[in-house]
Amino acid sequence: MSEAKSILVVGAHAADFVWRAAGAVAVATARGARATVLCLSYGERGESGELWKEPNQTVENVKRIRHQQGEQAAAAIGAEFRCLDLGDYPLEIGREALEQLTDIVRELEPDVILTHTEKDPFNPDHPVAHSAVLKARQLASGAGVASGFKTIKPPRLYLFEPHQPELCGFVPTTFVDITPVFERKQAAMAAMAAQKYLQRYYTELAERRGNHARRISGNSEVRYAEAFQRVVPEVLSHL
Amino acid sequence: MSEAKSILVVGAHAADFVWRAAGAVAVATARGARATVLCLSYGERGESGELWKEPNQTVENVKRIRHQQGEQAAAAIGAEFRCLDLGDYPLEIGREALEQLTDIVRELEPDVILTHTEKDPFNPDHPVAHSAVLKARQLASGAGVASGFKTIKPPRLYLFEPHQPELCGFVPTTFVDITPVFERKQAAMAAMAAQKYLQRYYTELAERRGNHARRISGNSEVRYAEAFQRVVPEVLSHL
Amino acid sequence: MSEAKSILVVGAHAADFVWRAAGAVAVATARGARATVLCLSYGERGESGELWKEPNQTVENVKRIRHQQGEQAAAAIGAEFRCLDLGDYPLEIGREALEQLTDIVRELEPDVILTHTEKDPFNPDHPVAHSAVLKARQLASGAGVASGFKTIKPPRLYLFEPHQPELCGFVPTTFVDITPVFERKQAAMAAMAAQKYLQRYYTELAERRGNHARRISGNSEVRYAEAFQRVVPEVLSHL
Amino acid sequence: MSEAKSILVVGAHAADFVWRAAGAVAVATARGARATVLCLSYGERGESGELWKEPNQTVENVKRIRHQQGEQAAAAIGAEFRCLDLGDYPLEIGREALEQLTDIVRELEPDVILTHTEKDPFNPDHPVAHSAVLKARQLASGAGVASGFKTIKPPRLYLFEPHQPELCGFVPTTFVDITPVFERKQAAMAAMAAQKYLQRYYTELAERRGNHARRISGNSEVRYAEAFQRVVPEVLSHL
Amino acid sequence: MSEAKSILVVGAHAADFVWRAAGAVAVATARGARATVLCLSYGERGESGELWKEPNQTVENVKRIRHQQGEQAAAAIGAEFRCLDLGDYPLEIGREALEQLTDIVRELEPDVILTHTEKDPFNPDHPVAHSAVLKARQLASGAGVASGFKTIKPPRLYLFEPHQPELCGFVPTTFVDITPVFERKQAAMAAMAAQKYLQRYYTELAERRGNHARRISGNSEVRYAEAFQRVVPEVLSHL
Amino acid sequence: MSEAKSILVVGAHAADFVWRAAGAVAVATARGARATVLCLSYGERGESGELWKEPNQTVENVKRIRHQQGEQAAAAIGAEFRCLDLGDYPLEIGREALEQLTDIVRELEPDVILTHTEKDPFNPDHPVAHSAVLKARQLASGAGVASGFKTIKPPRLYLFEPHQPELCGFVPTTFVDITPVFERKQAAMAAMAAQKYLQRYYTELAERRGNHARRISGNSEVRYAEAFQRVVPEVLSHL
Repeated sequence: MSEAKSILVVGAHAADFVWRAAGAVAVATARGARATVLCLSYGERGESGELWKEPNQTVENVKRIRHQQGEQAAAAIGAEFRCLDLGDYPLEIGREALEQLTDIVRELEPDVILTHTEKDPFNPDHPVAHSAVLKARQLASGAGVASGFKTIKPPRLYLFEPHQPELCGFVPTTFVDITPVFERKQAAMAAMAAQKYLQRYYTELAERRGNHARRISGNSEVRYAEAFQRVVPEVLSHL
Repeated sequence: MSEAKSILVVGAHAADFVWRAAGAVAVATARGARATVLCLSYGERGESGELWKEPNQTVENVKRIRHQQGEQAAAAIGAEFRCLDLGDYPLEIGREALEQLTDIVRELEPDVILTHTEKDPFNPDHPVAHSAVLKARQLASGAGVASGFKTIKPPRLYLFEPHQPELCGFVPTTFVDITPVFERKQAAMAAMAAQKYLQRYYTELAERRGNHARRISGNSEVRYAEAFQRVVPEVLSHL
Repeated sequence: MSEAKSILVVGAHAADFVWRAAGAVAVATARGARATVLCLSYGERGESGELWKEPNQTVENVKRIRHQQGEQAAAAIGAEFRCLDLGDYPLEIGREALEQLTDIVRELEPDVILTHTEKDPFNPDHPVAHSAVLKARQLASGAGVASGFKTIKPPRLYLFEPHQPELCGFVPTTFVDITPVFERKQAAMAAMAAQKYLQRYYTELAERRGNHARRISGNSEVRYAEAFQRVVPEVLSHL
Repeated sequence: MSEAKSILVVGAHAADFVWRAAGAVAVATARGARATVLCLSYGERGESGELWKEPNQTVENVKRIRHQQGEQAAAAIGAEFRCLDLGDYPLEIGREALEQLTDIVRELEPDVILTHTEKDPFNPDHPVAHSAVLKARQLASGAGVASGFKTIKPPRLYLFEPHQPELCGFVPTTFVDITPVFERKQAAMAAMAAQKYLQRYYTELAERRGNHARRISGNSEVRYAEAFQRVVPEVLSHL
Repeated sequence: MSEAKSILVVGAHAADFVWRAAGAVAVATARGARATVLCLSYGERGESGELWKEPNQTVENVKRIRHQQGEQAAAAIGAEFRCLDLGDYPLEIGREALEQLTDIVRELEPDVILTHTEKDPFNPDHPVAHSAVLKARQLASGAGVASGFKTIKPPRLYLFEPHQPELCGFVPTTFVDITPVFERKQAAMAAMAAQKYLQRYYTELAERRGNHARRISGNSEVRYAEAFQRVVPEVLSHL
Repeated sequence: MSEAKSILVVGAHAADFVWRAAGAVAVATARGARATVLCLSYGERGESGELWKEPNQTVENVKRIRHQQGEQAAAAIGAEFRCLDLGDYPLEIGREALEQLTDIVRELEPDVILTHTEKDPFNPDHPVAHSAVLKARQLASGAGVASGFKTIKPPRLYLFEPHQPELCGFVPTTFVDITPVFERKQAAMAAMAAQKYLQRYYTELAERRGNHARRISGNSEVRYAEAFQRVVPEVLSHL
């Protein structure tokens, strides 16, 4: 497995990448990789309640703030920030949006794509994002046989950790040690001022997954980790 | 994930390692690792029918021949060969045999252990081996907390591919490219003269898994591969 | 777990609630709760064959009869009856219908929602209803974080028993003792004159589930029960 | 289980039926059954790369060639060939296409339908085909109760073997011995000149499944077999 | 799939075969097959409570009565009755008992074996029986390769329906139409006087499974059926 | 579901009950229930490493200290402490130990039993405990039919949360709000001086499960919770 030179994170909402994958992204960019964060919506309805408490708030202003915060968080981990602004609660992805997504996958030719789990009983948009990313990845890379359009090398696909993992069918296959870059993840989380209450929650998650990673690897240096579930097998040249 | 310096393959019978893991072992030894093949029995009853066609055959002689063949096959891939001679059809592993197995795991401190799947509707001994290896690995490495006995670093655990994978619940998570060492695997297979009819079968399997690995990785150099299922997650320092 | 004060049953067709949940609804209304039955369609094509045997039958008349029967059955168990009349075989739920459904969930603020299983190899409309109810429940109650719209307390979600449970992936987590109200369920079933042949079938089911409930609880008073599968965990203040 | 007199194979692309079910179809037609191959698309984008290497190739010409090849392959196994030409990569099936498909199921009244698995991480069109076939089969045969439209006897439903079975959740329940008709399957495969490289692959698959079938049945006459997964149970008059 | 000429039913207790498989056995014997019922214990502790209500009851007498009843029930469906008398609650099967069981499988060379499910949260003995039957079947028939002992043709293996199917992981793959022999099943049930209360329960189950079988097959002649789960795939010469 | 008057927690080692169930036990005793903690071993080998760092440590002394700590922790939550002292790493439970366990279940007649999950890739003793508790519960309560021995009312069975839940197949079905008694759980944890490093870990787990419980219930008062998986269904008199 060669190291990722280009990583794409696709989230249903503007902040998903921060809590679930900012560490792995920061590790990649610290090692010279290119990283792109793609948000399918700003999460302006479902997860921006703090902003809506402001008097005279408008949806345009909520989106503007979420864009700024997303950009700032992405910058903290060395990633580019993009948003398709497809709307949330519910997020819907028709043929045109699927083509947009596929074109971005083709353009970026990522080695790794990170996205949501197939199920999430607590969020109607996450499974929609999952399903669209799976399709876009297949449409961009073909079925492994000669096809009538340009294809890219099939990216590795990982699911990031949902809020209530067992109820989403999430079983970790991969832990990434994010100890060396944990301050960057903290900076990214700090940028998401609208969801401040999640910072402590996800710091503890990183410690806990660090604990799991230590037990599994026997490497006592791991302090913080993120968990992922790999969807298609890896191909190794040796064990 | 650092490269394996020591690999242990545990098979229920003397020939299991050849068909299922000889390629991955040969890759490891070619890169300087130590490899040990541990057979729990000689498979003298369940899979030595060809030998029993000889007139006046005895169980001692069957075991002797199986030992020679196993040793020769192991030598072809640079591995040491050992057999606990616990009997087959049915293989039974009591407390004493479990301790023997645990002691060997402690002695070798392998980075990687390879063994059978949890289920196999076509073989009564494979699940028994699986269960014993899981226990021995845990007894040797502890539960990740301070314990009252010497523990080793927890080895990575992979299951090798059974004869009818779907019916054994086998889902590959890892393909190892064995193209550079495929001749060695062929030599190992050739040593198992008692089960000659399997050589073509497993050559084709290696090609087919090579096909799968090519499609997944987009690496057109892979011609032969072996498939494995990883049981505990990996811990990475980056993607 | 506090007792339900408001219950919503969503069925794909006009009669689903009768066979699958009339007992649990009757128990609730007998204890003072409000109950609403919402049918997504009248089932005028897929399950009204008896009515179509009448000469000169029209779809309007079939719907009219199904409405009367549904209303009568709902009345027998103390529930209100509504129908969205979205058509059946196939039932399709677009954005607008999803919003209607979400608005009803918001309006009723039910403590409990009952609906179909995720899979049903014998009915194309049941999974469509399941999926829409899951989404509507999430859209109405938010993701548990502050959102930009009014949210209701997340209702408990139960699936009711399908016709061939194992093939629909149904595994009961909850039995409701309907012994005290079984006559009401019988009255509700009697109202569905178009599907008379099902009355004995579902009486026996209630006895069988009563048998199961007796064995599980050790309570020999249970004679009739309905089985449900809870989808999100319960939160208790004590065991 | 009475023998199939009419078989319908539904593939997402023009060649799917050849690799996955040509043997079972040839067995059926050799015994006097009627067989129909229905392709939802020509696979003109996703699996016709060889044809697109020709200079000045057009999509009409690719479709024309794929039609000819499909017809020829179908003829080799005694089947009729039809194509809905709905487009591929991505294949999309709206209400109208679903009705077309349902009408064909009603018209043919097949005893057996063969189609793709529910999941396929390597092909975006296969699950779309699966889902549409399930719906069409239900819409044509009703829910087992009296309905307001003409229904046919519910066809047995089998999934055929995908390229990477374990990753698609495929677990075989049924092997069909295709030894007597294997030459016909080879002729059908030879007709698909655009995907010549798959012929050896699927010959070996047939041998391997033959090996599995021999071990399971103890019938040493089986040399070639195809594997299928039955979705709804069988009803037997005796074991 | 050729018709079974010899059927073996293995139950943990003396009465299991009656409720769960008497119909399928009666169908077989009515068609000329040989059927053997093998009980691993008399169920003298776990399911003979009615007998223990007699004053001065002894375990020998309970076993004697259970033997008579089992024999009578077996006679009603044309089967031979045997019991290994290994004790129940808990049933334990050591090496010697496993050999006894294997010898019987070898002796009878059954085409079909019927036994309990792998899990049963309501009975500690059923999974023990399941596991022993799986092993004995494999030890008697070998692994499909040449072995050093006499092997029989691998029998088809079916699990019969447990009391609470979903909680035991039971998913039917096969229904047997027992309409023509239902009176024999009733006679067999009547023989088990110690568990009289189960007769109505299992009559209704047979009707319900008959209902399922009718819906699946479209054959309106089926009135009574038994459901089974096939464990290893079938090998067919045609669909 | 009536409230538990008697609770039994069975752990493989002396400290398991503290981390995994002390809160639910404290809630029960605060409401007047009787609680018993039963440890199958002292965990003297596998999880007492801190104690073995003392010079001249002996196994008797380790057990003595573990007994004191267990007793003190149990006292903090109002429970009685017992230990069968069967040895750990590996824990083995033969016929005699199973009878001891069954007798204790019969003696206590608990309404609720709490124990380990069926799988745990990080601990060889937890699944052994799980399996023995399941059997003992069944042997004590019978199969729901009249049996030849005294039976108790079948206790509700819950699995408590393992260290790495997803890898153990743990899916929560039940959260218990332990906010009112959280200080008692802290006192119990403080008593386990040999595993001090786990106190912060399990405090955070309680907060995280509290977060989950808040989101699910919408009850903002929940600050600390424990998660459990219910194994057999509940029987309710109403929803």
